[in-house]
Amino acid sequence: MIESSAEVKPAVRLRYGMVGGGPGAFIGDVHRKALNLDGMAEIAAGCFSQDPQKTVAVGAALGIPQERLYATFEEMAEQESKRADKIDFLVITTPNTSHFSIARAFLSRGIPVVCEKPLATEMKDAEELAALVKKTGLPFMVTYNYTGNVTIKHARELIQKGEIGKVTFVNCEYPQEWLMVEAEKQGSKQAITRTDPKLAGHANSVGDLGSHIESMVSYLTGLKITSVCARLDKILPGRVLDDNATIMLEYDNGAKGIYWTSQIAAGYDNAFRVRVFGTRGAIDWNEEESNYLGLSCYGKPKTILSRGRDPFYPHAQSYSRIPSGHPEGYHESLANLYKTFIGALVKLKEGKTLGAEDQDWPTVEMGVDGVKFISKCVESSEKGAVWIKF
Amino acid sequence: MIESSAEVKPAVRLRYGMVGGGPGAFIGDVHRKALNLDGMAEIAAGCFSQDPQKTVAVGAALGIPQERLYATFEEMAEQESKRADKIDFLVITTPNTSHFSIARAFLSRGIPVVCEKPLATEMKDAEELAALVKKTGLPFMVTYNYTGNVTIKHARELIQKGEIGKVTFVNCEYPQEWLMVEAEKQGSKQAITRTDPKLAGHANSVGDLGSHIESMVSYLTGLKITSVCARLDKILPGRVLDDNATIMLEYDNGAKGIYWTSQIAAGYDNAFRVRVFGTRGAIDWNEEESNYLGLSCYGKPKTILSRGRDPFYPHAQSYSRIPSGHPEGYHESLANLYKTFIGALVKLKEGKTLGAEDQDWPTVEMGVDGVKFISKCVESSEKGAVWIKF
Amino acid sequence: MIESSAEVKPAVRLRYGMVGGGPGAFIGDVHRKALNLDGMAEIAAGCFSQDPQKTVAVGAALGIPQERLYATFEEMAEQESKRADKIDFLVITTPNTSHFSIARAFLSRGIPVVCEKPLATEMKDAEELAALVKKTGLPFMVTYNYTGNVTIKHARELIQKGEIGKVTFVNCEYPQEWLMVEAEKQGSKQAITRTDPKLAGHANSVGDLGSHIESMVSYLTGLKITSVCARLDKILPGRVLDDNATIMLEYDNGAKGIYWTSQIAAGYDNAFRVRVFGTRGAIDWNEEESNYLGLSCYGKPKTILSRGRDPFYPHAQSYSRIPSGHPEGYHESLANLYKTFIGALVKLKEGKTLGAEDQDWPTVEMGVDGVKFISKCVESSEKGAVWIKF
Amino acid sequence: MIESSAEVKPAVRLRYGMVGGGPGAFIGDVHRKALNLDGMAEIAAGCFSQDPQKTVAVGAALGIPQERLYATFEEMAEQESKRADKIDFLVITTPNTSHFSIARAFLSRGIPVVCEKPLATEMKDAEELAALVKKTGLPFMVTYNYTGNVTIKHARELIQKGEIGKVTFVNCEYPQEWLMVEAEKQGSKQAITRTDPKLAGHANSVGDLGSHIESMVSYLTGLKITSVCARLDKILPGRVLDDNATIMLEYDNGAKGIYWTSQIAAGYDNAFRVRVFGTRGAIDWNEEESNYLGLSCYGKPKTILSRGRDPFYPHAQSYSRIPSGHPEGYHESLANLYKTFIGALVKLKEGKTLGAEDQDWPTVEMGVDGVKFISKCVESSEKGAVWIKF
Repeated sequence: MIESSAEVKPAVRLRYGMVGGGPGAFIGDVHRKALNLDGMAEIAAGCFSQDPQKTVAVGAALGIPQERLYATFEEMAEQESKRADKIDFLVITTPNTSHFSIARAFLSRGIPVVCEKPLATEMKDAEELAALVKKTGLPFMVTYNYTGNVTIKHARELIQKGEIGKVTFVNCEYPQEWLMVEAEKQGSKQAITRTDPKLAGHANSVGDLGSHIESMVSYLTGLKITSVCARLDKILPGRVLDDNATIMLEYDNGAKGIYWTSQIAAGYDNAFRVRVFGTRGAIDWNEEESNYLGLSCYGKPKTILSRGRDPFYPHAQSYSRIPSGHPEGYHESLANLYKTFIGALVKLKEGKTLGAEDQDWPTVEMGVDGVKFISKCVESSEKGAVWIKF
Repeated sequence: MIESSAEVKPAVRLRYGMVGGGPGAFIGDVHRKALNLDGMAEIAAGCFSQDPQKTVAVGAALGIPQERLYATFEEMAEQESKRADKIDFLVITTPNTSHFSIARAFLSRGIPVVCEKPLATEMKDAEELAALVKKTGLPFMVTYNYTGNVTIKHARELIQKGEIGKVTFVNCEYPQEWLMVEAEKQGSKQAITRTDPKLAGHANSVGDLGSHIESMVSYLTGLKITSVCARLDKILPGRVLDDNATIMLEYDNGAKGIYWTSQIAAGYDNAFRVRVFGTRGAIDWNEEESNYLGLSCYGKPKTILSRGRDPFYPHAQSYSRIPSGHPEGYHESLANLYKTFIGALVKLKEGKTLGAEDQDWPTVEMGVDGVKFISKCVESSEKGAVWIKF
Repeated sequence: MIESSAEVKPAVRLRYGMVGGGPGAFIGDVHRKALNLDGMAEIAAGCFSQDPQKTVAVGAALGIPQERLYATFEEMAEQESKRADKIDFLVITTPNTSHFSIARAFLSRGIPVVCEKPLATEMKDAEELAALVKKTGLPFMVTYNYTGNVTIKHARELIQKGEIGKVTFVNCEYPQEWLMVEAEKQGSKQAITRTDPKLAGHANSVGDLGSHIESMVSYLTGLKITSVCARLDKILPGRVLDDNATIMLEYDNGAKGIYWTSQIAAGYDNAFRVRVFGTRGAIDWNEEESNYLGLSCYGKPKTILSRGRDPFYPHAQSYSRIPSGHPEGYHESLANLYKTFIGALVKLKEGKTLGAEDQDWPTVEMGVDGVKFISKCVESSEKGAVWIKF
Repeated sequence: MIESSAEVKPAVRLRYGMVGGGPGAFIGDVHRKALNLDGMAEIAAGCFSQDPQKTVAVGAALGIPQERLYATFEEMAEQESKRADKIDFLVITTPNTSHFSIARAFLSRGIPVVCEKPLATEMKDAEELAALVKKTGLPFMVTYNYTGNVTIKHARELIQKGEIGKVTFVNCEYPQEWLMVEAEKQGSKQAITRTDPKLAGHANSVGDLGSHIESMVSYLTGLKITSVCARLDKILPGRVLDDNATIMLEYDNGAKGIYWTSQIAAGYDNAFRVRVFGTRGAIDWNEEESNYLGLSCYGKPKTILSRGRDPFYPHAQSYSRIPSGHPEGYHESLANLYKTFIGALVKLKEGKTLGAEDQDWPTVEMGVDGVKFISKCVESSEKGAVWIKF
């Protein structure tokens, strides 16, 4: 033991709860690992499944005392909000259609919420949540996880600073192959959650992949969509929801765009790629090689910027944990969202006020925009892929 | 000298003429070099420019006797058709709006024609040429040059044989960056030819790059377009014709598609990429890495097929000149079109009849389809990017 | 709270201590984050720096009670070994020259050790540690972190199963650029640690990057080196230790190899690449794209295997946390080493015995091999890059 | 016909002869196509095979009159040198062991020579040819074809101008897979020519691929090799000559290097890659993507230079035929060597003197250096892979 005059202030470590994330669920476990990474929060309560025995099993594996494992989210919201050591925030990783009710239950009891995208499946629900956030003043984050990527944060600032000029065109695609086969009939929990309207809402590929595209382009460029012309395809016979979609767009600065989502694109794992073109140059980012950023300016050589090697803007750089060439991936990106969100909660606990950079996370308003986007695309497609104004 | 009982039959070497391809023109010289490569034809006559002195200069450099250099294409057609040693075929490399008149002048005088794309700028002209070809029975080729690529020929047969299943979706893009600046005001002959409606017709990027996309998808898949929804953008202020375009499509087998053409996409040289998705797999081809073909089938590892290394179908392989890893490029692709076309002319001269593989070149019918595509896209865009049936 | 008849067994969560990993140290923090990821262990004690005040500061930030922060590793070993709640294992992330003494101090007091590579800087020390591990029977891991990569584990099994035939040639390189400039004179703690013989031992690039290469090739192929011919270059004037090196090798099965390490290779971040060639095929792995594995077999198309997409061997697959296309990186690779190591410690605590797969971590014997490799390379180079037998 | 006062000067078109390049030979046909491309020379005489009937067949296909088809190269040299319309230069594309005699026969009769690499298989022969070139003053070119690549010419000037600083390290590799199997026993003419010492001389992979590496590094950097340590491996049992080799080198400026040649490297077609590292930056060139050049300078973003897009030095640019993104490949590279060589012959015919840039082709001195390199590598390997001074 060191004899020290320095006061050793224990590190602040928040407590969080989770609804969803039971056995077989992919995204719940990802959230827990991302939260573990920086050690800023630990799980303290949960309702991981509609089957209480599954919740107990998961809770045990996570070391949660049985008294904080709940059969329903309503009970959890009720009980947790009364505890002295209540959770500092809730994480929602359930199917889309239940996001709204769960978020409302916790928000209305004074607990900050982190919610998977899309925020809701109906516009009125999304708007109600936004109003509730405004009313309560509670921090609320929608986990558009790719917006946490270091390289994206640098690209955003590049664009804001005018490095590629005025944005003129956006081409964003997100192809996958996993629903080329009827995985939903083969027992895949993921596939059922995405393709069954009772769980997914009105859209499948547009609701999942389209949400990521819409939020990413909005985060990077700050542009607002003014109209869409969307065709939601049901490529596999019998599918009720889209498994492929093409969307033409117009933005408020006059720029144009094209989005493509697909779950039937052979050879693609998770190939989220965004290209933003401006009057002076363009950026090209690919999620599967997300430690690098293509930057091409007219009249200059094409460059590949490398996280850690090239001097990123300080705000972006602050989200990087390891040196260049040592890949950071999906966990780190989500951990970055949490780093900011938890950092803000801690500041608030300490009675401080938050600056703009303190709140660099996907807000409830971005969540509302996402739901609006999905709903307008569905409307356009149902009317025959016609143009719909926002 | 070898004493030989073998009869030495002199190699057949055809004569061709060219209209267009004067000083500063890119594509005319490419045609001449591609024709040189295999040594199957030599240039014998020309009208390279509207300025006779330029024609004389080019003709001299090419070693053409002055008597076969012409001030106008009409004179050339007239004179050449009367010679005993007349040209075996004509190559047209002029701006789009003159293709029709030139092609008609030579066809109607019995001379086979090779014409740059698009075949014409008006549907009625394209149809008149097709009728003339039918009537005369003369070979006629539209130089959709990328369809000559060895890897594309292999991909086509892969698709025909069902290796990727039934085609469900096509994503084809052709971005360039060269018209991000007003090159047409800086004296670029290429840029003027593309952006001035008097030379280019009704479309710029769709007429040039869109032609390549449409013919490539058609050649690879055999699908017919049934409707389009096209938005032709004029990104640079003051442009009369499109410099960027997005097109949603439907095909006769129920498949869907999306095409993107751009000349304002920073960082892109000539990035023609075609991805065809089917119920079993997908192909991915990129013109800038055209010796390789991505082939991904569901449930199998992703593969990169290499021209020369992997066993290509015999027809495709017959177009390859050098071993794997020794890149063949743009010249070889165009030379392949000529190889087939000239091979057919030689067979016809020898009184033989042509089989299907002998005629594996882009036909006048493909040319008509191309003009129709452009015209329907222009119509769709002018009406507000609405759906237009074919 | 759920009424449950199921017994909720609290999850086992081990306690670890760390020597090294103070402010400015890269690798210590990486270990802590990797250990956090799966939540299997928490930090309980530390001696993070030779400066006690720095240890206090780091310890406070990590939430360690002051009584378990130590001024020296000797004191820490002494005190911790006496506690009832003593650490379950120690992590050593100090400069190379101190690994031996620290490891010995804890091992000899019955505490399992995880040690950064290289195991030691002198052969006799390495061998003493190996003997101590044998004598005590304590688990001991050297963190050759890339051997934890999922794709590497699959590649290893591919090779073991004969998919590429008998190994004939190995080409392994590990270039970086960060020491192209005299970073050690600009205050970089990392650079000083690598280039100063008092901290690094007899080798710089060979000790750091060469260690990774040697252990990786050994892990993948199981081959033993029989002789080396090494040239250790000091490219930057004034460097005492190598910043670039080329090594020719022979293996016990008759195969040959070539290794290259560099810290002066402009454009390279951390480009660890290993290519193993056999009589039937070859694998190609690149650390910066480590979710994919190139596999080429003669007579078959080249393939790119994707973690999560392609069916990996079950043992390899068990180390993957997220779906294909969602990148796992450096943290996950190191976390995989810990996952196995901690899993084994837990089993031992529960009185179980360990099977072969339970011990799939880099052993002290691999550590000894690594020190031997470095020492033979140094000897070869000092004698004029001559062949040295093992 | 155009009425013109301009004097139409017929284009100069040289005549060449060829020894080698009979049926089944790869490289002879490549030379003919490369010579065709720009139309600067036409084939006028030949001795294509040791079998006169094969020569007759090839000659007929090429349209050569029978009187200029020869049974032996000696007869050809004798007869051609006496003709008024004699060939302007000879092209040698025979197996390595015959290069010397053929070159000497034509040179000594006043005919300029283009010879495939390696120049000879014995040092004394190579030196005799160099002396003969000096004595006669005749142009002589060794077709190290990759040195004709536009991007390489730009890279060379980059290095000369100091853009990457002083060269410190070179890593050059040239792996292929085609001799992983015993192609020489399966009737491959190429394989027999490479693996039979009677045709190939003392080395196989080092003689073929090593020649390319040595000449490329020399051309790019201007460095002279001072010593080598080479290990020539015979991986396939029964091979008399090397099918894989590793070579460590030192250069006259103190820089170090490593070369690797292989014909047993699964997955590699023709993957010639050269990386030159300097005190400020590095270049990276890959023959299979040879329209692009990687350029990385310390402290600046990594760039990809694109032929045609980025402003190349004027001399390099003068060798480019088509716009960026339209791939130029192997034929164009060889055509570039001929373009310079023929251009020089024409100038000499016109009585002009040649400047330095007029002679930018691989000289007989480069050919001698190549033979010396091979011979020193063979010597080093035979002595146990020891260091051999130059």
